[in-house]
Amino acid sequence: MRIVLDAMGSDAHPDPEIRAAIEAGRILNDEIFLVGPKDLLETKLKDLSPPSNLHIVHASQVLEMTDKPAESARSKTDTSMAVGMELVRRGEADVFVTAGNTGGAMATALFQLRRIRGVRRPALTAQFPVRTGHCIVLDIGANTDCKPEHLLQFAIMGCVYAEKVLHKSPPRVALLSNGEETGKGNQLIKETSPLLKELIPNFIGNVEPKELFNGEADVVVTDGFTGNILLKSSEAAAKFLSELLRAEMLKSTRTKLGALLAKPAFVNVKKIMDPGEIGAAPLLGVNGLVFIGHGRSDAHALVNAIRVARQAAEAGLLQELRTAIAEKLAALPSVQSEG
Amino acid sequence: MRIVLDAMGSDAHPDPEIRAAIEAGRILNDEIFLVGPKDLLETKLKDLSPPSNLHIVHASQVLEMTDKPAESARSKTDTSMAVGMELVRRGEADVFVTAGNTGGAMATALFQLRRIRGVRRPALTAQFPVRTGHCIVLDIGANTDCKPEHLLQFAIMGCVYAEKVLHKSPPRVALLSNGEETGKGNQLIKETSPLLKELIPNFIGNVEPKELFNGEADVVVTDGFTGNILLKSSEAAAKFLSELLRAEMLKSTRTKLGALLAKPAFVNVKKIMDPGEIGAAPLLGVNGLVFIGHGRSDAHALVNAIRVARQAAEAGLLQELRTAIAEKLAALPSVQSEG
Repeated sequence: MRIVLDAMGSDAHPDPEIRAAIEAGRILNDEIFLVGPKDLLETKLKDLSPPSNLHIVHASQVLEMTDKPAESARSKTDTSMAVGMELVRRGEADVFVTAGNTGGAMATALFQLRRIRGVRRPALTAQFPVRTGHCIVLDIGANTDCKPEHLLQFAIMGCVYAEKVLHKSPPRVALLSNGEETGKGNQLIKETSPLLKELIPNFIGNVEPKELFNGEADVVVTDGFTGNILLKSSEAAAKFLSELLRAEMLKSTRTKLGALLAKPAFVNVKKIMDPGEIGAAPLLGVNGLVFIGHGRSDAHALVNAIRVARQAAEAGLLQELRTAIAEKLAALPSVQSEG
Repeated sequence: MRIVLDAMGSDAHPDPEIRAAIEAGRILNDEIFLVGPKDLLETKLKDLSPPSNLHIVHASQVLEMTDKPAESARSKTDTSMAVGMELVRRGEADVFVTAGNTGGAMATALFQLRRIRGVRRPALTAQFPVRTGHCIVLDIGANTDCKPEHLLQFAIMGCVYAEKVLHKSPPRVALLSNGEETGKGNQLIKETSPLLKELIPNFIGNVEPKELFNGEADVVVTDGFTGNILLKSSEAAAKFLSELLRAEMLKSTRTKLGALLAKPAFVNVKKIMDPGEIGAAPLLGVNGLVFIGHGRSDAHALVNAIRVARQAAEAGLLQELRTAIAEKLAALPSVQSEG
């Protein structure tokens, strides 16, 4: 596989990326393309004896957090993101990985790679740690206002990803709603439900956040606004609880000692909840494989991101997505005509 | 004050209600009306020497969890909810408290009490524990599809509640969104934002769940679908984290001992996160004061519910809501005409 890593993505770029590229180059039998300002990267790599399968690709610009995504995707054409995705577009690489700005990656991907034929809206996915392992949720922020056809496409793409990359077969698909019963939900959910019932083989109906964390679904479908609130409120509530616990534990010698003894448990829980353990999640629906990791990714998280990206490339995810979208659209003329 | 308590609301009814009514009667200088099947309640109360300010009001029926709310609100007119709310409607009591089915309470309230003049959609509120104390969030489930005017009314009513009952003055009001910046959000948020900017004095813009838990707003406004997902995902994520931690702590003698020593910290955190400490949250916008507590409420939680309900009654919440709605609607003719 030929894997592109954006050297300028993470908050602490490019050092975590450099360490990750070296490690991935050593442990994987792949070509790793590290994209960023050549001089900078070469200077930093000089004394680190990089493996021969690690290649530097020059990109003079960086898409900054302060850049407006859509504008910059058009005007800044020599960013590490744009150059990296261009390698994928030209067929010179199989997958692109970045820990950069999500909005920027999305806009650049739409501009550089465009959409898979028939896909109306690419979707950002997130992998949630749940009681039984993981589930994926999409969309978690790319599309704030959605129509039932969009959610149907998210379901189709989410299924392909869950089946081909995460080996859930057949994946159980659900709609995120405010109640499990059929008929619960807002207008969007009520209109989407019959579509999924007709076209998604293993559609199990609605799930509430409780059932999501119970691991009752493998693919949870939602609009990007609600998905974003789900993701961020789960993270914020978990963080709030952890901080409360820390503060309470510092209040007495007894509880401080307790915290010290219980530390291995806290470390393990942190690891389970850590997005870095998953590495990165795909932007599904653009015409090329793009994986986006957390801005706070360290080298370890980036190596995990590279691993999951290479699994997707190896599974032929892009072709699988193209086929699934084409087949399902053929089964649903009304959606196809708008595609 | 004259406070009505639904004897048949909580999951373990009527025992927690009976104990709560006795305790509230003893510690508060109020008349407590306990509504439910007279024979049952009298038998249970017989040996408990109830105080003289505790009165039983007979209601032969119970609104069951399995009842369809809207249907039952019309067909079952002798439920403890219907009879209790009727006391409020006839001016024979000041506030109604139940730990019963939320949908049922909402439907019964709409049928028995109707809406405050000008209010288009009553809203369910929730009180969230946050870093600085509490904030209220509305709507958390009564209205799955909302228009900007509805969110404006939620903001007006939430402000009145935060100011008059929770003594936040002036309350900081925010819209729940997927990004803090103006312009972020779905269509509903984008259309609501200018309305709130014009009509809500202390509107601070958008908040994400992170800022909500940081305590940056006193009143967080959202549609009932998103608010419900926010509430339930926060609860589910916190529960998931706690369970993970418990499981990890049971894995070794060392961590088990740590957990034992750290127990006071866990107990305190549980108390902070416990909805029972808040007791109940109001259904704002119906023409009478209605407070709804958690189904799992015990006697302690129900006494807290009675306390918060009496504060609202004492503050003249209903009249304050009527005035605020009338004033703001007068300032916005387009909304008034639809009211």
